[in-house]
Amino acid sequence: MDYRKIDLLFKPKSVAIIGASENPDKVGHVIMQNYIDVGFSGMIYPINRDAERVLGRKAYKNVKDVGAKVDLAVIAIPAEGAIRALEDCGKAGVRSAIVVASGFAEIGRDDLQKSLVKVSEKYGMPILGPNCLGVMDMRSRVDTMFLPTFKLDKPKIGGVAFVSQSGAVGSTVLDMISHEGFGLSKFISYGNAAVIDEVDLLEYLMHDDDTKIVLFYMEGVKRGREFIDTVKRFTQTKPIIIAKGGITQEGSKAAQSHTASLAGSATAYEAVFRQFGLVHARDIDDLLSFGKIFETEGLSPGKRVAIITNGGGTGVLATDALYSNGLVQADLSEDSAKALRKVMPSIVNVRMPLDMGGDADDKRFAAAMDIITKDKNADMIMVIALFQTPGADSRVAATLIHYKSNTDKPMVVVSPGGNYAQVHNQMMESSGLPVYESPSAAARAMKALLDYSNYIRDTCGIYGKGQKRQK
Amino acid sequence: MDYRKIDLLFKPKSVAIIGASENPDKVGHVIMQNYIDVGFSGMIYPINRDAERVLGRKAYKNVKDVGAKVDLAVIAIPAEGAIRALEDCGKAGVRSAIVVASGFAEIGRDDLQKSLVKVSEKYGMPILGPNCLGVMDMRSRVDTMFLPTFKLDKPKIGGVAFVSQSGAVGSTVLDMISHEGFGLSKFISYGNAAVIDEVDLLEYLMHDDDTKIVLFYMEGVKRGREFIDTVKRFTQTKPIIIAKGGITQEGSKAAQSHTASLAGSATAYEAVFRQFGLVHARDIDDLLSFGKIFETEGLSPGKRVAIITNGGGTGVLATDALYSNGLVQADLSEDSAKALRKVMPSIVNVRMPLDMGGDADDKRFAAAMDIITKDKNADMIMVIALFQTPGADSRVAATLIHYKSNTDKPMVVVSPGGNYAQVHNQMMESSGLPVYESPSAAARAMKALLDYSNYIRDTCGIYGKGQKRQK
Repeated sequence: MDYRKIDLLFKPKSVAIIGASENPDKVGHVIMQNYIDVGFSGMIYPINRDAERVLGRKAYKNVKDVGAKVDLAVIAIPAEGAIRALEDCGKAGVRSAIVVASGFAEIGRDDLQKSLVKVSEKYGMPILGPNCLGVMDMRSRVDTMFLPTFKLDKPKIGGVAFVSQSGAVGSTVLDMISHEGFGLSKFISYGNAAVIDEVDLLEYLMHDDDTKIVLFYMEGVKRGREFIDTVKRFTQTKPIIIAKGGITQEGSKAAQSHTASLAGSATAYEAVFRQFGLVHARDIDDLLSFGKIFETEGLSPGKRVAIITNGGGTGVLATDALYSNGLVQADLSEDSAKALRKVMPSIVNVRMPLDMGGDADDKRFAAAMDIITKDKNADMIMVIALFQTPGADSRVAATLIHYKSNTDKPMVVVSPGGNYAQVHNQMMESSGLPVYESPSAAARAMKALLDYSNYIRDTCGIYGKGQKRQK
Repeated sequence: MDYRKIDLLFKPKSVAIIGASENPDKVGHVIMQNYIDVGFSGMIYPINRDAERVLGRKAYKNVKDVGAKVDLAVIAIPAEGAIRALEDCGKAGVRSAIVVASGFAEIGRDDLQKSLVKVSEKYGMPILGPNCLGVMDMRSRVDTMFLPTFKLDKPKIGGVAFVSQSGAVGSTVLDMISHEGFGLSKFISYGNAAVIDEVDLLEYLMHDDDTKIVLFYMEGVKRGREFIDTVKRFTQTKPIIIAKGGITQEGSKAAQSHTASLAGSATAYEAVFRQFGLVHARDIDDLLSFGKIFETEGLSPGKRVAIITNGGGTGVLATDALYSNGLVQADLSEDSAKALRKVMPSIVNVRMPLDMGGDADDKRFAAAMDIITKDKNADMIMVIALFQTPGADSRVAATLIHYKSNTDKPMVVVSPGGNYAQVHNQMMESSGLPVYESPSAAARAMKALLDYSNYIRDTCGIYGKGQKRQK
């Protein structure tokens, strides 16, 4: 399939909603209302056998009656009717379609799914789904999701595309992405992947300038060879963070009845992930945690991490976390050690982890950052800022944001805590500084970034020390 | 040391604050203000060489001038002065002391730490610290912490004692405990453990009826044999969840300069933890995550987990999470399967994980819970409630709370998401239902509970199937 056709799903100039309804309980109602609410600038054609008008617009009995070009049909009626509607779409020259209904191969109705594929082939019409939530495009404001909008936080515009085979994982992770302040480019829930599959979607996103990184929840791969070929080219330009459902034998059985995916063995998948530079997330928490560092940080030249902390115990845990995850502490240069001795109180032991004491304020953080951001022995920086301490306040957050914008080294902040800490975490995150709740979570994310950085350096050779990944 | 003397730290009838001051930047000011703010019912004696009055109360030049019984002295002056003040306390018959100052063995001043121990021995006076934050007691309202109170969320009263060798880990985890809605009995930050050490504290908490479970952050053990002996007896009555700083070789070096702890090898510690029923948390996130299930759930009779979900993909991830953590899916009885087939829509596949569909509402959740809570083949229950779906609302949360209070099986909820989900998560957690953000986090916690349950069954033999841990 020509991946460029997929663009129609995200940027249609006209859309037909098949099953559009005045009844707010109907999926077709929610989808049409969404198009209206977001201020969709193209034409909207409600299709309903029994209504004259839907949501204030002229309704048509059949998509064939529209008599104008339709870029996208969203099919919001049950499985059997959906096939007939798709046939009508094909005849009417509709250019693409999304089928949200379930009731196809995932419950054993392979016959219905085959019919759907046939219609797609007959008319050269790309179809997303069935058994999916459809798409969101943050820039064109297209939103085919039929979930009650008050239940999900709204994402801001950014460079993260999130692709999910599962609608459930899709909607929850989308909600978390929004809540955590990620910037989203596109959301795609692709369900059974009867026509448009993971390979097509990756091809499309590889060429999508709005997308800088991809978060991917996948249950199975239909075209193994093409998938690997695409991934190989993709990961050399942008990172893909992938969570794979059905990685255990039992999980794989569950995936089979969920999206009719043949899940394959865990070992085989993990080997492929490693070999082709895919960043492997074990679960949805990893997906978000890794996504956070990849969204804002450039590649890392190495595994040496400088730890700066205003709390000793957390520095100890951070050291454990580094070594447990295959990272090491930076061995500061003699010059840095000398400079630190001059600016730190005498009680501070100038070594890694640099424990500046519970009374460290913004000036002490700045003094340390000034020296450590320049130290060539440090590849990455983990700053532990405990906002429960007397010296830590908004000025410390502002100081870290300042140094972050002046260094090429990947840098993360560890800041666990309640309301006061979280206000400052949001302040730092909205300024592009990734914040973690524990040293382990930070170290795991740094290791994921390092693995990808090493992969890029080894396979492309284009990445030199201190050079930022092109964003 | 007689552990009963430690009670004086938590329930003094009179307290002297050495270093009490009108200057709000001084630690002695913050501590005294805390005693006043929480409505401490005993006598407060500020000790200050230069002031007539502090915070509206008559001040004394020396603790020896008080001329009344003093149960506890909080020493809020630097290290060298602290030794002299302790000597004065001993002479004045003060019954216990907390030394918050740092500047002892952790920076190589073993001489000062030895002097402190000598004073304690000379007068039979238990001393907490030095280099610590002191204590909080939720019932007596004693609070010796010198952190700005607006920076920390306030805990509610409950059965969790949190003991931390590190003040930094102590204050941040305390903040998170409060934010996550745990109920606290006592908080103890014990620093260098010069006199009162981890063994004394555990002996004390073992006999403390207010404490049902202990969360423990430790960097090193001074009395290995006694520690093991105490832990062995302790874990047979209440669980201890322990995070050990310095578990790697490098982390152990950091711990040495932090609390002067000889950390020992990781392998040795982990073997001891397993052997004596300590629940091992890898980091502060595990500490909280495990604490949550132990706070509310009884012991588990086995590893068979029933998964109920309103989202297929999350069910797949949950299945992976079970098997990756040494748990298995429950094999539902024939009766349960039959009963479920009657009450579930025909599209629902009656098997594990039970995917009830994205349109599942409170009635469908109730129907499933009704059957599964009674199934003898299920030892524990993991309910995945995705509040982003059309059918899930406050009634689903209320339904889960209802079934939770009517079952002996350990039960957890997985509910990832933003604001709408979190409102419901708080609703469930405040009703004693542990909620996790991902299937992995839930499965890890269930595995920790199972390991402890098996330990209790194997060592005590007192625990039978379906029987609840005494709470």
